[in-house]
Amino acid sequence: MEKDYNYYVQNIKPTDKNALNMANARLDMLAKPPGSLGGLEKIAAKLCAITSKSFPTINKRCVIVLSADNGVVAENVSSAPQEVTAIQTINMLNRLTGVGVLSKHFNTDLMVADVGINADITHPLLINRKIRKSTGNICKEPAMTKQEAQQALLVGIELAKQAKDSNYDVVGVGEMGIGNTTTSSAVLAVLLDYKGEDISKVVGRGGGLEDSAYIKKIDVIKQAIKLHNPNKNDIVDVLSKVGGLDIAAMTGVFIGCAYYGIPVVIDGFISVVAALCAMKLNPLVTEYMFASHYSFESGYALAINQLNLSACLNLDMRLGEGSGCPIMFSIMEAALAVITNMATFEKAKINDDYLNPIRQMGNNAF
Amino acid sequence: MEKDYNYYVQNIKPTDKNALNMANARLDMLAKPPGSLGGLEKIAAKLCAITSKSFPTINKRCVIVLSADNGVVAENVSSAPQEVTAIQTINMLNRLTGVGVLSKHFNTDLMVADVGINADITHPLLINRKIRKSTGNICKEPAMTKQEAQQALLVGIELAKQAKDSNYDVVGVGEMGIGNTTTSSAVLAVLLDYKGEDISKVVGRGGGLEDSAYIKKIDVIKQAIKLHNPNKNDIVDVLSKVGGLDIAAMTGVFIGCAYYGIPVVIDGFISVVAALCAMKLNPLVTEYMFASHYSFESGYALAINQLNLSACLNLDMRLGEGSGCPIMFSIMEAALAVITNMATFEKAKINDDYLNPIRQMGNNAF
Repeated sequence: MEKDYNYYVQNIKPTDKNALNMANARLDMLAKPPGSLGGLEKIAAKLCAITSKSFPTINKRCVIVLSADNGVVAENVSSAPQEVTAIQTINMLNRLTGVGVLSKHFNTDLMVADVGINADITHPLLINRKIRKSTGNICKEPAMTKQEAQQALLVGIELAKQAKDSNYDVVGVGEMGIGNTTTSSAVLAVLLDYKGEDISKVVGRGGGLEDSAYIKKIDVIKQAIKLHNPNKNDIVDVLSKVGGLDIAAMTGVFIGCAYYGIPVVIDGFISVVAALCAMKLNPLVTEYMFASHYSFESGYALAINQLNLSACLNLDMRLGEGSGCPIMFSIMEAALAVITNMATFEKAKINDDYLNPIRQMGNNAF
Repeated sequence: MEKDYNYYVQNIKPTDKNALNMANARLDMLAKPPGSLGGLEKIAAKLCAITSKSFPTINKRCVIVLSADNGVVAENVSSAPQEVTAIQTINMLNRLTGVGVLSKHFNTDLMVADVGINADITHPLLINRKIRKSTGNICKEPAMTKQEAQQALLVGIELAKQAKDSNYDVVGVGEMGIGNTTTSSAVLAVLLDYKGEDISKVVGRGGGLEDSAYIKKIDVIKQAIKLHNPNKNDIVDVLSKVGGLDIAAMTGVFIGCAYYGIPVVIDGFISVVAALCAMKLNPLVTEYMFASHYSFESGYALAINQLNLSACLNLDMRLGEGSGCPIMFSIMEAALAVITNMATFEKAKINDDYLNPIRQMGNNAF
């Protein structure tokens, strides 16, 4: 990308309010009590606003997955060894992991990019955008330089451009990175301005930590925030000091999707923290965002509330990878089926004895 | 059906706990943190238990919709005229309503039965099992006789048998009946033993009542319960006095699906009240049930808690018809894709430098 990440941040356009109003008017004309399809109606209208179309489609979709390692694993805050990042990145591309299977099932492509895996790996489908091998251990040093964080943001924006150029109608944002619930919690604690004991509210057990490791994880996050004192109003500062290459690149994907006008789906905890970083850069990004599932991981609910979004799926998932996104695409398709194919009050008239009553019905009939 | 409804109630078998345990063992062998796919894992294991299969499928599915009118509409407790029941039943079969569109989109068949529409209607696809034209106004008389309630239960059981004979792998339970949120609230209030002001907790605004009509609706329910004093331990007594033909037949579908071993999906408020009636007849039915979406209608949450189930979709829907079921089928398919296609730790080994680390991983790697 030739331009600075900030160019894309500054040039996000609001979605089409005229298309939104027309969609809502149409939804109210459908033969049902107004608003009775709830979230499906909101999704349909939002997709109309993003695409400026009356009847959008999301036939071509992909999940963009950012893979990177995190130096903080040296503190034993993860239940899995670092090698799992590389292994599962390969397995994902071979459609064997959670998102691998679910994306295949829901006719969804994967774009998997290495932005910082701590190993030299190759796979014909892997997009190599490695910025460095792993971040630093945030307990002792910044995760990365500010320049590296900006580079990661640009990689994410570039991937969104690739999605646009490949004509994807919708994008999901996932990740693979052992240790990234720790960095995500640290970023979220800073953004929410949580101090001291409050920090534990945004810390979960990730892959499945035992009590002692969980307490350690909270301490590590407290230490990292104390050591670096990131400026919550400077997202690059936060990401570079206590974040990760995956979170930074994911933030870039959210920015890029908004810039290029692509509907974008938040997955779980790491994804929602990146979405919140993007919102702090430019609040307009939320007009392009959809929340898939309520992650079981602590902190998700706090983050999604900040975004003023609500998640459609209630499945206690905590796998990450973008695994909730393909399921959400299916719900978004259902929403579009409603606005496209349901009868209006006009069409709902039927040619028999029941024609007369419905003639009197109009929109107030329900 | 030759036998009494009670025969089916008494002869429901528990699901296959061996198949359940095997499914859970397999889910724990998949290359992910144990339990990290949350609800998807629970759905998959439950489907294995119901079907006694290691890798069940739900390729053939239908929503059974019970249509009936409710005499209580004479009290002006509904925002739509009674004619809408007949009209939308026809429109549904023509795939123009919410469930009509969503079932078509998700490759789902419809079985629509008239158990009490207050008109003579015909449609080539409509199953005529009319027990009577509309129920009585529960404010002044019982909804129906006990015999009619038993007959409705049997119709539901028969429809489940038809679904079994047609090789449906999964069934959803929906309804169409103006006034049926009033009768459902009345039934739920009785089952929960709510008295006086507490009754308002289970009463919602249905299709969209204004304040005055909403207050009227609560009063009507209080009056009906006071007048008939149904015995909460006798479901046929409750259904016949303050219920409806749709709710009674839906209760029968839940009973029948459990009896015939078919996974069955609860839709919204009326559906969950029928599910609760079925559970009161035989608690084993819940082993066959899946909850699709959290209805916006007051009382849903109370009922689903009684069933000890949790809904997967959070869409503020309140349309009814069974509209949430086809979306749920899609989630259930996703759950089966996970258990069927995800790599086990054994298969997740990859033939390169990362072979060794994963050899050491086993189940504790995450």
